[in-house]
Amino acid sequence: MNTSDVKALVFDVFGTLVDWRSGVAREAAAFLQRHGRTAQEADVFADAWRARYQPAMEKVRSGERPFMKLDVLHRENLDQIASEWGLDHTKVPAAELDALNQAWHRLDPWPDTVEGLTRLKSRYIIAPLSNGNVRLMIDMAKHGGLPWDAILGAEVAQAYKPAHEAYLRTVDVLMLLPGQVCMVAAHNSDLAAAQKCGLRTAFIPRPHEHGAMQATDLKPEGNWDWVAQDLIDLAKQLGV
Amino acid sequence: MNTSDVKALVFDVFGTLVDWRSGVAREAAAFLQRHGRTAQEADVFADAWRARYQPAMEKVRSGERPFMKLDVLHRENLDQIASEWGLDHTKVPAAELDALNQAWHRLDPWPDTVEGLTRLKSRYIIAPLSNGNVRLMIDMAKHGGLPWDAILGAEVAQAYKPAHEAYLRTVDVLMLLPGQVCMVAAHNSDLAAAQKCGLRTAFIPRPHEHGAMQATDLKPEGNWDWVAQDLIDLAKQLGV
Repeated sequence: MNTSDVKALVFDVFGTLVDWRSGVAREAAAFLQRHGRTAQEADVFADAWRARYQPAMEKVRSGERPFMKLDVLHRENLDQIASEWGLDHTKVPAAELDALNQAWHRLDPWPDTVEGLTRLKSRYIIAPLSNGNVRLMIDMAKHGGLPWDAILGAEVAQAYKPAHEAYLRTVDVLMLLPGQVCMVAAHNSDLAAAQKCGLRTAFIPRPHEHGAMQATDLKPEGNWDWVAQDLIDLAKQLGV
Repeated sequence: MNTSDVKALVFDVFGTLVDWRSGVAREAAAFLQRHGRTAQEADVFADAWRARYQPAMEKVRSGERPFMKLDVLHRENLDQIASEWGLDHTKVPAAELDALNQAWHRLDPWPDTVEGLTRLKSRYIIAPLSNGNVRLMIDMAKHGGLPWDAILGAEVAQAYKPAHEAYLRTVDVLMLLPGQVCMVAAHNSDLAAAQKCGLRTAFIPRPHEHGAMQATDLKPEGNWDWVAQDLIDLAKQLGV
């Protein structure tokens, strides 16, 4: 695949660049222990919280409700999970739930992420194309040292992936053609949507995103332009 | 003035952080010489081009036309200036005018800009709140080494300063209160609009933005929260 036409790389973030499950579980463990539960339940709590991610965005994608920042959706989902676990507002102050909601802003990058992005930035425009809102992405970048050129994604596009507007409005902001932009993700479904919009695609497996028993997205399931072991390998393949 | 509440600094860019007049004149000089004019006319050409900046944005602010990227307005204005100077499409290929329009993407920072921003970034979120579009700001940052946390401004807000939406939507994206955001600018009118929206304000004089004969914005003309000699002085005043 010829790299000469690609001018910008846009990245999925949760799972592809940062380990959301460990980061959320770490903060959930302390929260649960403060409220009579055990730290061993933290992974289940993190998975339950994340399980409400797609359904919450679907209400925006379907037009049932207007666009809302992901921080707002995360916070609503946390209210629901907390209630299910008997940790609702009758027992836990809202400020403590607000603080736990910020766990998504403090996720750690995978070991290859910062070096890979730094190398890729030397030749390409790099930006997140995440469903996370701008402030969440800013805080995460400051926390983990992600060297973005710009913060793009759902909030700037006012559309959640995999809605085509999320990809096409990002391409418009970059003033490029779809074929000059490459979507980088650990999720085949994200790449499939990007490819339908005319973007180039790069797959990186993250086999532990969902823990040791992960069964999805272990390998490329489409005709992607690049498949790399990690971001450093992708940088090598792209000549930087 | 207490700095403890300020979480983010947003910056005017053209004039405040970069020397647009010298940068545009440098590229206009080569352009004019290629077409039978002299390099000595380049400053006048740059000023004439910039003089069409506010009227073009006013058509958007007034609702006469929908929001358009500044790159598009710059290009339309260049067509008009080129025509006035007898350098219209009958004599100059569109591709050459397109290339000259990119001069705005390659403006050099003032000598204190990069050090000042780098110091301020260590404690605050820093982002442009410019009327320049996102791609223009990305290219300029890569050209001059501006270490932005995010690219905000008119295109993200879909409103041109000094419309209040430009400031208030930026504050909303940052998930802050207006009083937690400080507008930094070399233009009193920009600060006056920001202050009306509840933002904090910092003035930095750029007495040569318009050349040796500049008569405007030589000193603060409002009750601004901070007045600094340059960005490094502002960083000192803000404790970084």
